[in-house]
Amino acid sequence: MHVRMHGFERYTKLSDALKIVLSHIKRLGKEEISFNNSLGRVLASDVISKIDIPPFDRSAVDGYAVIASDTFGASTLKPVELKIVGSIKIGSRTGLRLSAGEAARIMTGAPMPKGADAVVMVEHVKEKDGKIEVLLPVTPGKNVSAQGEDVKLGEIVLQKGRILRPQDVGMLAATGNVKVEVSAKPHVAILSTGAELQEPGKPLKGAKIAVVNSYSLSAAVASCGGMPLRLGIVPDKEKQIRFALEGATKSDMVLISGGSSVGEGDVVPDLISELGELLFHGVAMRPGSPTGFGVINQKPVFALPGFPVSSLVAFDMLVRPALRHMQGLPPDRGYQKVRARLGRKVSSTLGRIDVVRVKLQSSGEEFIADPIRVTGSGILSSMTAADGFFLVPEKREGFDEGDIVEVEIYPHF
Amino acid sequence: MHVRMHGFERYTKLSDALKIVLSHIKRLGKEEISFNNSLGRVLASDVISKIDIPPFDRSAVDGYAVIASDTFGASTLKPVELKIVGSIKIGSRTGLRLSAGEAARIMTGAPMPKGADAVVMVEHVKEKDGKIEVLLPVTPGKNVSAQGEDVKLGEIVLQKGRILRPQDVGMLAATGNVKVEVSAKPHVAILSTGAELQEPGKPLKGAKIAVVNSYSLSAAVASCGGMPLRLGIVPDKEKQIRFALEGATKSDMVLISGGSSVGEGDVVPDLISELGELLFHGVAMRPGSPTGFGVINQKPVFALPGFPVSSLVAFDMLVRPALRHMQGLPPDRGYQKVRARLGRKVSSTLGRIDVVRVKLQSSGEEFIADPIRVTGSGILSSMTAADGFFLVPEKREGFDEGDIVEVEIYPHF
Repeated sequence: MHVRMHGFERYTKLSDALKIVLSHIKRLGKEEISFNNSLGRVLASDVISKIDIPPFDRSAVDGYAVIASDTFGASTLKPVELKIVGSIKIGSRTGLRLSAGEAARIMTGAPMPKGADAVVMVEHVKEKDGKIEVLLPVTPGKNVSAQGEDVKLGEIVLQKGRILRPQDVGMLAATGNVKVEVSAKPHVAILSTGAELQEPGKPLKGAKIAVVNSYSLSAAVASCGGMPLRLGIVPDKEKQIRFALEGATKSDMVLISGGSSVGEGDVVPDLISELGELLFHGVAMRPGSPTGFGVINQKPVFALPGFPVSSLVAFDMLVRPALRHMQGLPPDRGYQKVRARLGRKVSSTLGRIDVVRVKLQSSGEEFIADPIRVTGSGILSSMTAADGFFLVPEKREGFDEGDIVEVEIYPHF
Repeated sequence: MHVRMHGFERYTKLSDALKIVLSHIKRLGKEEISFNNSLGRVLASDVISKIDIPPFDRSAVDGYAVIASDTFGASTLKPVELKIVGSIKIGSRTGLRLSAGEAARIMTGAPMPKGADAVVMVEHVKEKDGKIEVLLPVTPGKNVSAQGEDVKLGEIVLQKGRILRPQDVGMLAATGNVKVEVSAKPHVAILSTGAELQEPGKPLKGAKIAVVNSYSLSAAVASCGGMPLRLGIVPDKEKQIRFALEGATKSDMVLISGGSSVGEGDVVPDLISELGELLFHGVAMRPGSPTGFGVINQKPVFALPGFPVSSLVAFDMLVRPALRHMQGLPPDRGYQKVRARLGRKVSSTLGRIDVVRVKLQSSGEEFIADPIRVTGSGILSSMTAADGFFLVPEKREGFDEGDIVEVEIYPHF
């Protein structure tokens, strides 16, 4: 009988486990990419504007550039008449200079002529015979976008650590930052072990089941900015797992699912010890408790449970913060949180964190979180039915119906 | 003087504009892809399990398969002794059959032997000399995952219209659905027009500015599942815009930014009329009011404002729901919403919707939404600073400090 067959002697608190993980995660380097491929990437350096925006004083509307003081007192009953001395188009500088009593047709975005300090909108003007009647006065600066009013040359427009969104890509274009430094994507090797596993899609032989974790973990890695590298199913033999683990440490991180518990065949934690250092094994959370973590060849290695749900929950709790940290993001799960009222009572065990999957629905002015009934940790349908989850802390025995909980929402990508 | 130089005569209500848009949007077809490339795609057909999960009764823990009734009354002080008659490994069927007084070593995930109806966890057993002492009784079914308890053969496991997440990819693997039908990605042609525009990255000549919308709109299209096709800057000449617009309708949708207002150079709405049908022009919202929509060669064409912020806001309000609808998603913006307390008063104009960009922060148990101060619609930095936005409805003149508003959050991809 192997020593492994005695159950976990102690479980590491999730918060302690996360601290240990993060203390062994190094920030990855930067890479320079085109701004045009930067959606969703993490900025690795502050972005500084190379220009003023707007780069010159320009009209914010279609209308007539004027000297504001000329229009004071104008009204529909008593319009002010100004002489049109030119038309200013967009795209090129103008040599025009206005004197008192003069106006110039101007298009949105066109540069202001010298002397002018405001623009009367086309709606507030009647034009006839080379003259305009101004029906409404304007104050100096009205309808003019001043040079640098949006962004100033040399200003930091986007701070490092930000995930780039469509408007941020626009800002890169606007400020001349066509090359941008982003965090390198973590390359994550993904192994599955288990004599019961076969690749999905073919009829299942004997007591085999389809491997799930290789694929769900790959998608999870991609969903937080990593590059998954699926190394497939490793046969349940120590020698082969040892070989595969060592090879996998060429990546920035290794995930191996299966063989992480305390059963006869659970050789992964011992192999991590042998090849490097096992830093914890067994975490006080449910699902996902048979999770281990260590370092081999200076690379973080996660031993994740074989059950698909446990494996994905352990990923969320420990791997996701690590992958975010590697990219210079806050070392948390990064999910949007909402407060919700609990639809029914939830019981938990003191001393461990329970990750409770919920369906979320709007009800009047609040959200209702309905815990999904689960009989075992293998119930993958509890994850596909869930909109998100909340945590029952170690010091609580659960929550009552009607309690307010903080739900983290699984994003749609 | 062109007729265009007279301002909008009327603005279409945003809700009416959206109705018109959606009535001209057709669902795209399906395509079959590998489950392994399906993260973030929209399911186009219900997914039906090809197997039971688990495919056989199996142990949910490492321990000993037993006949539950044999263990009744067992305790630490009065353990029940059972004879070990075999070991059941994972991955292959077992011919073993238990009789009264017998037990079999069993690993997590291994098939249950005939006769057995429960598993005693390894933690609750002492093994010695081919026998075990059971220290805790188990009820029938305990620690056994019954065939089909998670998913039944023929059951719908994922419904069409869902955006696939990591756990959903796992479910596809588990249920043998290695090919999956998803909605085709909308191909969206993106044109920018404006004599003032040049490609970003080179020193700006004359009164030129860098084109922003081509890139921010591309990213926005990608962010809601579309395939952007950037057709570049079209010179501000009717003939060239006409030619470009017609060619662009080879895509599923056309976005053209710039030239959409009522100024001299704003030829786009007239060209849509000429080439097809202009269905509205001018929307009662701010920013983004100079937005038009029509159909050319049966394809939806959006005339978006040239100002980057107006253009992105108009995209959110009208194009995003349309792109989602094309893919079989609810025809809304699809952003996560949270309720937040307004950090300061916001004024608006009756009869139009104001899209107010906000910074969002947690404060105790609630979110505070701080409106970003903006002087003009061209302030791109108001979008990059924003975490999200809320709408001031047409019938309100604004909101007071402390009012509760519903903030839609810009997601991180």
